[in-house]
Amino acid sequence: MKKTSNDPRGEIRQDPVSNNYIILSEERAQRPFYYEFQNKLIENNVCPFCSGNEEMTPPAVLTVDDENNSGWKIRVVPNKYPALEISGSLDFDNAGLEYGLSGEGVHEVVIETPRHESSLTGLTEAEAADVIKVYSRRLRDLSKNKNSACGMIFKNTGPVAGTSVVHTHTQILALPVIPPAIADEIYNSQVYYVKHGNCIFCDILENEMESCSRIIEQNDSFAAFCPYASRFPYEIWIAPLKHNSHFEAMQDNEYNELSAILHKTLYRLEMQFIDCSYNYYIHTMPFRSRNSSSYHWHIEIIPRTSFIGGFELGTGMYINQVFPETAAEVLKEVVKDQR
Amino acid sequence: MKKTSNDPRGEIRQDPVSNNYIILSEERAQRPFYYEFQNKLIENNVCPFCSGNEEMTPPAVLTVDDENNSGWKIRVVPNKYPALEISGSLDFDNAGLEYGLSGEGVHEVVIETPRHESSLTGLTEAEAADVIKVYSRRLRDLSKNKNSACGMIFKNTGPVAGTSVVHTHTQILALPVIPPAIADEIYNSQVYYVKHGNCIFCDILENEMESCSRIIEQNDSFAAFCPYASRFPYEIWIAPLKHNSHFEAMQDNEYNELSAILHKTLYRLEMQFIDCSYNYYIHTMPFRSRNSSSYHWHIEIIPRTSFIGGFELGTGMYINQVFPETAAEVLKEVVKDQR
Repeated sequence: MKKTSNDPRGEIRQDPVSNNYIILSEERAQRPFYYEFQNKLIENNVCPFCSGNEEMTPPAVLTVDDENNSGWKIRVVPNKYPALEISGSLDFDNAGLEYGLSGEGVHEVVIETPRHESSLTGLTEAEAADVIKVYSRRLRDLSKNKNSACGMIFKNTGPVAGTSVVHTHTQILALPVIPPAIADEIYNSQVYYVKHGNCIFCDILENEMESCSRIIEQNDSFAAFCPYASRFPYEIWIAPLKHNSHFEAMQDNEYNELSAILHKTLYRLEMQFIDCSYNYYIHTMPFRSRNSSSYHWHIEIIPRTSFIGGFELGTGMYINQVFPETAAEVLKEVVKDQR
Repeated sequence: MKKTSNDPRGEIRQDPVSNNYIILSEERAQRPFYYEFQNKLIENNVCPFCSGNEEMTPPAVLTVDDENNSGWKIRVVPNKYPALEISGSLDFDNAGLEYGLSGEGVHEVVIETPRHESSLTGLTEAEAADVIKVYSRRLRDLSKNKNSACGMIFKNTGPVAGTSVVHTHTQILALPVIPPAIADEIYNSQVYYVKHGNCIFCDILENEMESCSRIIEQNDSFAAFCPYASRFPYEIWIAPLKHNSHFEAMQDNEYNELSAILHKTLYRLEMQFIDCSYNYYIHTMPFRSRNSSSYHWHIEIIPRTSFIGGFELGTGMYINQVFPETAAEVLKEVVKDQR
């Protein structure tokens, strides 16, 4: 598992003091890094994700065809600079304080549209619904790999959020470990369930709907709200109103509802903050797990309007300069999308 | 504890799902935010931390006089835009899922020099030793406040690291809670101690000194090394070779040694990466705690050469593109300071 090994994959290491996992991947060091650099590429019409430049990415693992023409609507491709790679075996190494395992897994990119859009809001709600369906299909497929323990779907939009390619896309990782953030949520939700007999997220949603002071958007199936203990200014969570532990177990009619609320919420952010950089990610149950009465899948949206400094890195806490009640008020007042 | 309360302090809230703490502080929203803006201020000779502009900060709580002239060498002032404020009482609020407490605490700034330097390496090693002594004095003083549970000393240098003022400075927070990152380390170190009868950090240091593949600097009292599970490229930890749980219990002769290794290590980083942004912070035991055989204080230095994106926020894991063994090799080869 040491750097000197012949395994072309990177490795996953666990810190013995914090118990945190890290992924070491030199492959990924090759990727284009600067947003500015990418913007230049675009000017030369060589965006690797645009229609016509398909040979610039590895071959697609999934393509959604456009029923209106001969082209594609969505392509899912292996990440050219993967953090993890599949080789079929999971090797463990435990030399005293140095505990590691092979960087076994999958790293894919969902190219959300053939058009050169820089945000999901550049898609129609119907197009965004197809993207969400693709998230779900990939999770179901990736969960079949016995060496993968958990999926993570995440998005980086804008330079401060860590984007290396401007063209709107989402990343999916199949990890051989359950990320600490997911494991902690599952554990804490279970503790709450044992105490109260309810899903903690169902209770949070009931609470938010009653007070309404932090709700931004709502439809028949979902609510978007600024959470009580928002880490970042204008942080927003989107959760299904009906209890469901698994994102990929969503009902057919819910895709459109999720697309609508996600689209509207991101649009509010972008209207409030010009060139808003943001991340979002989906927290859902690990692969091959049964329905859980205590866990509730959801999306967390993190606008990157503030820096992460030494305090945040040193404590694991966050200083937020905008009360979530204020943030919700501001976002609710943003003029509605007239398009 | 709600926003509508008349308490001028912010509040600390705990997320019921992740158990993470956040500090809400609208005061802090007033602070000058952009590094560029500050650079402009400097051009007009109005840096608030420079000698002669003392009236631009709140009155000092501690001043170290310069024995060579009538001026000061170091000033510690209350943060003009504090994340926490002292009022003498700690109020708790627990309305079901909304658990919070008052933003009670202290937020100070150590102005490390009267000269307009942008990094600690702009000071001599002797001057930096005095700064470290001041860290220690402030921790000892702040620990007397019964409402403060833990101190956090941290530094943001450079625009990517979250600096709002260029002039080299350190921040100190006295928190009414023990930060999760500290609590986790204490707990895990204790588990290791119970199993092995040794301090985990003492064992890590022994391991590093034996293999030498990740050591960058070393002197009689300290070692600087890239940790086995580095979260960030070129991450470095500095720890005392002799077991010690409390930073503020350092022996007099150790200040110079710590200053020397910190100064040399940061200088290596700055030689390797022009305009390197970095954070460092000190992990030490909470206030009013006894000597611990299982915990070991240390400094963590985080160069900010990579972005924190959706993957990191969503998982609590990090993707690192540089193996710590490679990072140590590179940093060891940086030409030594000839000054």
